[in-house]
Amino acid sequence: MTIDINCDMGESFGIYKMGNDEALMPFITEANVACGFHASDPNHMRTTVTLAKQHNVKIGAHFSLPDLAGFGRREMVIERDELANIIIYQIGALKEFLKILNVSLCHLKPHGSLYGMAARYEHVAHAVCDATEHLQLPVFGLAGTLHEQVYEARGIMFKAEFFADLDYDDDGKLLITREHPRLDPVKVADKALRAVTDGIVVSASGKKNKVRADTICIHSDTPNALEIVKAVNASLSGYMQASN
Amino acid sequence: MTIDINCDMGESFGIYKMGNDEALMPFITEANVACGFHASDPNHMRTTVTLAKQHNVKIGAHFSLPDLAGFGRREMVIERDELANIIIYQIGALKEFLKILNVSLCHLKPHGSLYGMAARYEHVAHAVCDATEHLQLPVFGLAGTLHEQVYEARGIMFKAEFFADLDYDDDGKLLITREHPRLDPVKVADKALRAVTDGIVVSASGKKNKVRADTICIHSDTPNALEIVKAVNASLSGYMQASN
Amino acid sequence: MTIDINCDMGESFGIYKMGNDEALMPFITEANVACGFHASDPNHMRTTVTLAKQHNVKIGAHFSLPDLAGFGRREMVIERDELANIIIYQIGALKEFLKILNVSLCHLKPHGSLYGMAARYEHVAHAVCDATEHLQLPVFGLAGTLHEQVYEARGIMFKAEFFADLDYDDDGKLLITREHPRLDPVKVADKALRAVTDGIVVSASGKKNKVRADTICIHSDTPNALEIVKAVNASLSGYMQASN
Amino acid sequence: MTIDINCDMGESFGIYKMGNDEALMPFITEANVACGFHASDPNHMRTTVTLAKQHNVKIGAHFSLPDLAGFGRREMVIERDELANIIIYQIGALKEFLKILNVSLCHLKPHGSLYGMAARYEHVAHAVCDATEHLQLPVFGLAGTLHEQVYEARGIMFKAEFFADLDYDDDGKLLITREHPRLDPVKVADKALRAVTDGIVVSASGKKNKVRADTICIHSDTPNALEIVKAVNASLSGYMQASN
Repeated sequence: MTIDINCDMGESFGIYKMGNDEALMPFITEANVACGFHASDPNHMRTTVTLAKQHNVKIGAHFSLPDLAGFGRREMVIERDELANIIIYQIGALKEFLKILNVSLCHLKPHGSLYGMAARYEHVAHAVCDATEHLQLPVFGLAGTLHEQVYEARGIMFKAEFFADLDYDDDGKLLITREHPRLDPVKVADKALRAVTDGIVVSASGKKNKVRADTICIHSDTPNALEIVKAVNASLSGYMQASN
Repeated sequence: MTIDINCDMGESFGIYKMGNDEALMPFITEANVACGFHASDPNHMRTTVTLAKQHNVKIGAHFSLPDLAGFGRREMVIERDELANIIIYQIGALKEFLKILNVSLCHLKPHGSLYGMAARYEHVAHAVCDATEHLQLPVFGLAGTLHEQVYEARGIMFKAEFFADLDYDDDGKLLITREHPRLDPVKVADKALRAVTDGIVVSASGKKNKVRADTICIHSDTPNALEIVKAVNASLSGYMQASN
Repeated sequence: MTIDINCDMGESFGIYKMGNDEALMPFITEANVACGFHASDPNHMRTTVTLAKQHNVKIGAHFSLPDLAGFGRREMVIERDELANIIIYQIGALKEFLKILNVSLCHLKPHGSLYGMAARYEHVAHAVCDATEHLQLPVFGLAGTLHEQVYEARGIMFKAEFFADLDYDDDGKLLITREHPRLDPVKVADKALRAVTDGIVVSASGKKNKVRADTICIHSDTPNALEIVKAVNASLSGYMQASN
Repeated sequence: MTIDINCDMGESFGIYKMGNDEALMPFITEANVACGFHASDPNHMRTTVTLAKQHNVKIGAHFSLPDLAGFGRREMVIERDELANIIIYQIGALKEFLKILNVSLCHLKPHGSLYGMAARYEHVAHAVCDATEHLQLPVFGLAGTLHEQVYEARGIMFKAEFFADLDYDDDGKLLITREHPRLDPVKVADKALRAVTDGIVVSASGKKNKVRADTICIHSDTPNALEIVKAVNASLSGYMQASN
């Protein structure tokens, strides 16, 4: 068993800076690279792929609804065919930078509202499959939700994300928040380790639930994200691939 | 020797229609497919690639400055690196549709102002090369201008376009117009044939000049574009590849 | 009592043409002018305002969700405050053209999905009010739906649209369709006249229902829109303001 | 005589933050508010106008070429009529927020490349006039350049900006840089004071030149912008309007 640490990367846009990719990249194993629809642009995509390559970090396409102004966080009603085409477009754009820089695409992750919609709406989960099944790559998602079922029924690898920096409720459900407060790196690292080794997450009120953790997602916009990712990296180092 | 007939295709956007792709596609051999920066969107890209495939028409990437509002016809000052990245992004996006539909990318053509800028500015011609040299595909352009020199110096195939539906001046230079009036299809077809067989174009005032014609460009927005393309196709049929 | 005939105008974008504004404008009394978020751009806004002024047609702001690619027809989840700000922005942009051309803004109409959302979601109807109450102008909508209640509770004039070119069901509800087929102009004109004079609409199956018709909306994308608007104009001429 | 201190404000976009408006606003007298074409969006426009109002700072429209990806810094070839319409659109959008918040528009400033183009190209300077002459407000610019001549010939007030945080050459010309390094606040304040009181600027090599300074522009992206603006404010306090 190997575990990964993934982080959203390359979310700057034009002269606008977002995140601290240079600092975080050495401590993760998977970079989810924005494709220009919720963040980034051709310049930042190239820079981010270059940076990930330097650190031998696996690159995934982090595709989104078309919503720069809302950072891909505003749900939109788009039909399955159009969603699939939007996803194909973004993945292709990223892949050409990978081709030029001679690295491979390793995974896929819907961003923001698209991620949540894929977890809840069948036609959205299917649109993700329609756009990606020819790639034969794992798609990230929340275990126990609709997209896991749809992806697996379609023969697409599902890679379960565990959010070590977010709380889970007593039913084992993730409590998604928009703002991410400063957290204790030791606690986050312990939570990640326990999810990986025991398959257990403890809710805010103390209840233990089963959880599947194939890759640990760390939010780069938590104020002390760098400390957190270092701590998680240290605690999981025995479970990660040697190359990273 | 084989000659091609190329046409800009897939320039609709959302519910806005542009051109009559369905009617023209059977009579051309090369479709220059818009990539979403001056026209088109993921839906229209897929539709256009599908249509070209049905008619066994070779598909090229028709990439542009980022300018939907100006249809890629407004010159912009963009540095070489950024231009290259913009081009890479568009080509990649198109290629993913080709991959899904199992067809190959066959050529490259800068659109609108980018085409003119590549013909005049060295850094723009180089940006085109930077973005495309890994593809080893022909890039369309106007023979006798700067981009021909740059492309060939960089080892990139240059494919000379002859514009049978535009006038050339006494120096053999193309007179580019924004509006394309109704034309006599017979005259256009004769002009195309003469360029192909004799390498000669006759200017508006009657002067003969040498011209290189590897592919004949027909503007789809000429009012009687369908008649013209049919006439050119008929006159050049002996010089085109059998498959088309 | 006076009745108006309104039509969506100025929905071209860049070189993309939409509708036949020049032909229709002489036969309507209210132009709903697109503000650049679902269609149009600064050039087309000025042209449309100029055209409406020439024909003495009242001008309204036809504001939308930010969705050029989807023509404002894709529902988006946007919070009340942001929606209000988006609407304020568009109305202001249009008003400056009106100021330069010395004409007044006369009405307001949400476009596409925003119209439907205002009819169904309270926070959307309130956002429309938040953005427009300082203008003291009528807002168009469907009588009998939520936005009528909200607008009137907020002290905003509600102007009920009757869609003479669409069918109503047995409950008096409008059957909205995306495509508008060719229609018999005489029947549409009769339907409009009956709605205006008797306050009655007959459903597809023959059932009579009460209906409120302050302004008759004619879709400019019906294939024979010009014939229809001429017929409606002729049948309602006795009920329209003399100036038009 | 009164002097102003102006600063570009409201250049955040969506979740992307730019500048430290809250800290700087108390020390300036004129806020150049971005209008959504190079930066900002309807939410940030409202927030910025609200903030300026709280500090009794005069608000100006900071309009741009349509270029969010390039922050309005990429020159574009746009015809006079279209440029004017683009400017009208932005000013109108901003004015509606001012109307709702009950404050007045006080000045106008082209942003980025548009500023430079207005200083060099006659048709651009005229486009600015075409779009703004009905407002009878001062337009900011560089004294001694083409736009000063054009604006004044058109009867538009020209307000000369002095850039206390940039160097001037031996001919008295401004040396524009994209990156703004940390500067000594005392030197900047002295430079501003001398420009205001003596009409003199000293070049990098020590040469004195005449300069016109109606308003001092402070770049908010200089690393120690807050210190600088405080120092300039303190040194010029005797020359500023009492209300600020």
